[in-house]
Amino acid sequence: MFVDMEATEFKDFGKEMIDYVANYLENIRERRVLPTVEPGYLRPLIPDSAPAKPDKWEDVMRDIERVIMPGVTHWHSPRFHAYFPTGNSYPAIVADILSGAIACIGFSWIASPACTELEVVMLDWLGKMLDLPEEFLACSGGKGGGVIQGTASEATLVALLGAKARAIDRVKKEHPEMSDGDIVAKLVAYTSSQSHSSVERAGLLGGVIMRSVPPDDSNKLRGEALEKSIKEDLEAGLIPFYAVNTLGTTSSCTFDRLDEIGPVCNEYNVWLHVDAAYAGSAFICPEYRYLMKGIERADSFNFNPHKWMLVNFDCSAMWLKDPSWLVNAFNVDPLYLRHAQQGSAPDYRHWQIPLGRRFRSLKLWFVLRLYGVENLQAHIRKQIDLAHYFESLVRSDERFEITEEVIMGLVCFRLKDSNDVNEALLKRLNGRGETYFLRLAICSKFTEQEDIDISWKEIKETADEVLAKKN
Amino acid sequence: MFVDMEATEFKDFGKEMIDYVANYLENIRERRVLPTVEPGYLRPLIPDSAPAKPDKWEDVMRDIERVIMPGVTHWHSPRFHAYFPTGNSYPAIVADILSGAIACIGFSWIASPACTELEVVMLDWLGKMLDLPEEFLACSGGKGGGVIQGTASEATLVALLGAKARAIDRVKKEHPEMSDGDIVAKLVAYTSSQSHSSVERAGLLGGVIMRSVPPDDSNKLRGEALEKSIKEDLEAGLIPFYAVNTLGTTSSCTFDRLDEIGPVCNEYNVWLHVDAAYAGSAFICPEYRYLMKGIERADSFNFNPHKWMLVNFDCSAMWLKDPSWLVNAFNVDPLYLRHAQQGSAPDYRHWQIPLGRRFRSLKLWFVLRLYGVENLQAHIRKQIDLAHYFESLVRSDERFEITEEVIMGLVCFRLKDSNDVNEALLKRLNGRGETYFLRLAICSKFTEQEDIDISWKEIKETADEVLAKKN
Repeated sequence: MFVDMEATEFKDFGKEMIDYVANYLENIRERRVLPTVEPGYLRPLIPDSAPAKPDKWEDVMRDIERVIMPGVTHWHSPRFHAYFPTGNSYPAIVADILSGAIACIGFSWIASPACTELEVVMLDWLGKMLDLPEEFLACSGGKGGGVIQGTASEATLVALLGAKARAIDRVKKEHPEMSDGDIVAKLVAYTSSQSHSSVERAGLLGGVIMRSVPPDDSNKLRGEALEKSIKEDLEAGLIPFYAVNTLGTTSSCTFDRLDEIGPVCNEYNVWLHVDAAYAGSAFICPEYRYLMKGIERADSFNFNPHKWMLVNFDCSAMWLKDPSWLVNAFNVDPLYLRHAQQGSAPDYRHWQIPLGRRFRSLKLWFVLRLYGVENLQAHIRKQIDLAHYFESLVRSDERFEITEEVIMGLVCFRLKDSNDVNEALLKRLNGRGETYFLRLAICSKFTEQEDIDISWKEIKETADEVLAKKN
Repeated sequence: MFVDMEATEFKDFGKEMIDYVANYLENIRERRVLPTVEPGYLRPLIPDSAPAKPDKWEDVMRDIERVIMPGVTHWHSPRFHAYFPTGNSYPAIVADILSGAIACIGFSWIASPACTELEVVMLDWLGKMLDLPEEFLACSGGKGGGVIQGTASEATLVALLGAKARAIDRVKKEHPEMSDGDIVAKLVAYTSSQSHSSVERAGLLGGVIMRSVPPDDSNKLRGEALEKSIKEDLEAGLIPFYAVNTLGTTSSCTFDRLDEIGPVCNEYNVWLHVDAAYAGSAFICPEYRYLMKGIERADSFNFNPHKWMLVNFDCSAMWLKDPSWLVNAFNVDPLYLRHAQQGSAPDYRHWQIPLGRRFRSLKLWFVLRLYGVENLQAHIRKQIDLAHYFESLVRSDERFEITEEVIMGLVCFRLKDSNDVNEALLKRLNGRGETYFLRLAICSKFTEQEDIDISWKEIKETADEVLAKKN
């Protein structure tokens, strides 16, 4: 006979987990950032197979510190400075409890109207916070609107597929003699060598040529270089159709010149997708919106509240001026998914790669309400201030140099020495497991000036060792 | 100044949510399954934009019943019988709280070793529960292993991309003069018209021909029909490379003849992917494993514990005999993702479409431990018994007929009358919002025999009305 966990048991277990989680996060500073385990550490710690009879939840709780924590890289440690931040907040965690309990699969409006409609309105709230052009917002009453994707990689691919559908439609009107295959074989997409690896992957998945346009000396993609590439391809008989403009690249947080790229894309009928995965959160602060100048010329825009806006993964916000290109590209509509309200509210399954989707807008609703816009702005500003503070420390030591202008929460720096010496410094720092870079990102909301001081002290000491060994 | 939510506040809020969720699920029977709201219901209920200052969490809690619940389709109501089930359980919800707090992005081993390693071992546990051939398991010490994907759609696409890489490699060895493009243009994948719409989509995304092979009279894909298609394509100079065998189709839960399909795929060097998204959970019961006879011939296998095994979405389990085809297909490896342990433990980012991933194996660990295998088996058996109970009710009324053999938790039935009359019955049933079909799936773990009786009574009464109206 099937025996479910009792509600009373769940209440004890759930509340114990709430306490554990609060304790974990409030004391995360005391944990070593990087684990010391070797690959394969976990298998010997647990049985070879699932138990036949239920374990006790108290045993599971106990195993968290024994089995899991020794192998966790603490992304929310105040001294975690790798990659980019990933969101984590109490309001988002609580929202996900509710999402887990409702556990609807919101692929169509009727499959759970609240799941679709809260998402529509939250993407409007968020779009307004960034001052996105009206055309991107559902509340404008036009075609545009937003959607939550899993990751920026998916947004890039989804936009590419929409662009592909639009290009095929356009070219077919001009050249009815061409088949879809003929057209697709000539499609060319554009990006910069500085864009995220997922852009190249989107090109592979979409089965189109992805041209890597050389950026300028400060790693920005410029209008002139893009236009030159497009013209060359047109002369060669190819069909330019899609371009990705990155605002805040992964390796050094540089900003392509959207104000130049936009007019070129519009002139040549190229779908412009703007990937602001990390930096987009900063646009809730008016003083950083100069970096998105020209956004009105884009066809789609994406950033990850799950990176820098305290919303837990996954919540990648994407807006499209005309989602119908996607909907048409994806519309495979079998009987078991039909419903009467079709068309009057978006069926988000046509806006994304997978069919299923969680009730993710709850996280956004909780975070926006329980922090409030001003507080989220303060969070962004604090983290950028900390990056500038670290920058000033690096600049105060003449052995070091800053390699990229510090604009957001990322500082790229190096010893004024050979790559080998810098590599040695990097290895030694990571090996110590207390801090983690030559690309220091402000990640945790727990990071304070003292944490930066500690990290900087460690970098300096390690530099001393590396340089001493060299000489 | 940035003001975060205090830990004490989170504890109150989180525990209040735990109580709310327990109350919601324990009393879900009292809620109407389908909401009565019209499209656009939600927007007027909340402000036009995010608040500048933080709201109180108590207000957010209050708004759940006011704003969200009126628009929720209650997938876990005991009288929800639409689509297929989606997992939901107390252990999984609690696991997700922990996952949200750790909030690591496990794209590589070093990014959080526990996140990768628990997944490796949990997929072994699960594979053993299904008695999958050793070659699919990481613990065999061979190449094989499992991974958690977001959805079965992604698994189908990922397998197709691995198959594509393998086919290109093979053909290039035989025909070094052929370019990748030449080869891709000739690749043909196979599936049945009964397979899920995502299979067709995977073909579109992968840029290959997807052949829909006609199933037999009982909707099963057979070996002979597949071989005929393959031979025709070979004669036409095409390259068969990938086939999807569905175990438990979406529309009627039929099972393709894997025992026949496997040998054909092996003979013609076609990558065989087995999609058991829904029905796969039943293979934890030995008495249903006859349906997966021939699984040892497959290259990849996928099922969704987030459908029928009480694990919350998203948790789609996939095993591959040789993941290296995927890893090679996806390996774009920029500097900022490198780490020293590369190779000695899987870097799951190469096994999936997106780069980012949550710590999803925690859900699996909690569910497997806190239910235990025998209890999960009891859950499956109970739901299948309920389906047979409903089947017997339908068979007891001579106006109705069962249209597909009932094997799992899905019953397909109709009035022995015209399609129009059946359509009228369906519309009227859904309009009443108390139940939802002509394809009745046992979905909720709260469903009991009495719920089936109520649904059956409603179907009969509605049939009376529809037939009376007709005559």
